[in-house]
Amino acid sequence: MFQSSFKTLSAKAAALLDQELMSSGSFSIDQLMELAGLAVAKAVYHEYPSTGRNKVLVLVGPGNNGGDGLVAARHLKLWGKHEPIIYYPKKSTKNQLYANLLNQLKDLEIAEIESNEEVIEMLKDQNGVKVIIDSLFGFSFKPPIRDPFKDLIKYLSDNYGKIAPIVSVDIPSGWDVDQGPVDIDINATTLISLTAPKPCANHFAKPGKTHYLGGRFINGKIAQKYDLQDLLSLYKNDDLIVKL
Amino acid sequence: MFQSSFKTLSAKAAALLDQELMSSGSFSIDQLMELAGLAVAKAVYHEYPSTGRNKVLVLVGPGNNGGDGLVAARHLKLWGKHEPIIYYPKKSTKNQLYANLLNQLKDLEIAEIESNEEVIEMLKDQNGVKVIIDSLFGFSFKPPIRDPFKDLIKYLSDNYGKIAPIVSVDIPSGWDVDQGPVDIDINATTLISLTAPKPCANHFAKPGKTHYLGGRFINGKIAQKYDLQDLLSLYKNDDLIVKL
Repeated sequence: MFQSSFKTLSAKAAALLDQELMSSGSFSIDQLMELAGLAVAKAVYHEYPSTGRNKVLVLVGPGNNGGDGLVAARHLKLWGKHEPIIYYPKKSTKNQLYANLLNQLKDLEIAEIESNEEVIEMLKDQNGVKVIIDSLFGFSFKPPIRDPFKDLIKYLSDNYGKIAPIVSVDIPSGWDVDQGPVDIDINATTLISLTAPKPCANHFAKPGKTHYLGGRFINGKIAQKYDLQDLLSLYKNDDLIVKL
Repeated sequence: MFQSSFKTLSAKAAALLDQELMSSGSFSIDQLMELAGLAVAKAVYHEYPSTGRNKVLVLVGPGNNGGDGLVAARHLKLWGKHEPIIYYPKKSTKNQLYANLLNQLKDLEIAEIESNEEVIEMLKDQNGVKVIIDSLFGFSFKPPIRDPFKDLIKYLSDNYGKIAPIVSVDIPSGWDVDQGPVDIDINATTLISLTAPKPCANHFAKPGKTHYLGGRFINGKIAQKYDLQDLLSLYKNDDLIVKL
């Protein structure tokens, strides 16, 4: 196993930290998701620059990881160099925030595709999608992967290298947060860890892959409690992301 | 009167646009304030760079303009080069968001001062505050200015050049949004216009002053409706602010 030089946060610790940010830290999910999604967009913008209208396919899962993807799609569109398209097959009905984020994308005239078949067709077109954002599942994901995500992830995994590179948000979808790769999972080229890398990120470092850190919102007390000071000191100036 | 080369938004138009962002645009105030405050922090960080722990005094008003200042203080502190101190004499009791934003600052161990006298004492110390953020009143301000703000603004105005430079958020506090300077108002050195400059910004351009634009969140439809496309095209790359 590759030994990382950075501190990681287990699934349990990451859940506790998030809870802490929202209780004693008084952050709203709107705020945290906005900053997380903005960091994702910045990583994509810098790692996959586009001078024209490069298509970015954003795969949106049913939970918070999906929300980060929706926010990222908005910022990329506003910056005017990328053309996001979303695939959001399992929309949450419980949470108004997701509906609002989706509505913001509709107002930006961001297209939505509706089925795995459309995704596959779009990815097969060599002049089509230049980068894929995987915001399907985050650190609270528990197997098994259900349809339509199972087939989708299998397709992406089987076609690694033949389709556009994948940027995974926090966790390559399907991976076990603590253990890493499982049977069926996303083979990402870029990982953007939010707040701190999760232990599975130790399995990520390979030549040709890039790893970013984003979500620069935790205070000194929390950083100390979770032993993240060294990690946070990697950020430069007022940057919202850092390449690890 | 200096003729600006940029499109401005009247008080009425700015209020309508904000309403539109939050209704049909489905933005929450949390989201918009986070992005606005982040832009303010970026402008301060770049215009008043600090290699150490330069003190930034953030004057926080009772409304949304004050909320932008609270968010800016947080980001500046997180970036580690500036030491924000807040003065927030009239705290809103109606709005939980402001209480949350304040709590986030307490968690970052950002100091708060409590009176005009403390502000004046701090500003008199030449080794003290290096820059002041004026987030007292925004585009929905209606005169008269009440205490303790009246005396405070009078002091700041009377001591222009003798105290630290002032960065005003959206409007130099006290100015009429459409007409500009009045009897008692803030003499700002830097203005950060949010979404678009307000008409009073036409009175701002003088040698030695700097003007930024931030709040990069409006979609093409709204931009077209308010004739802001040329203005928005000034943003470079994925920058969240632009110097006008």
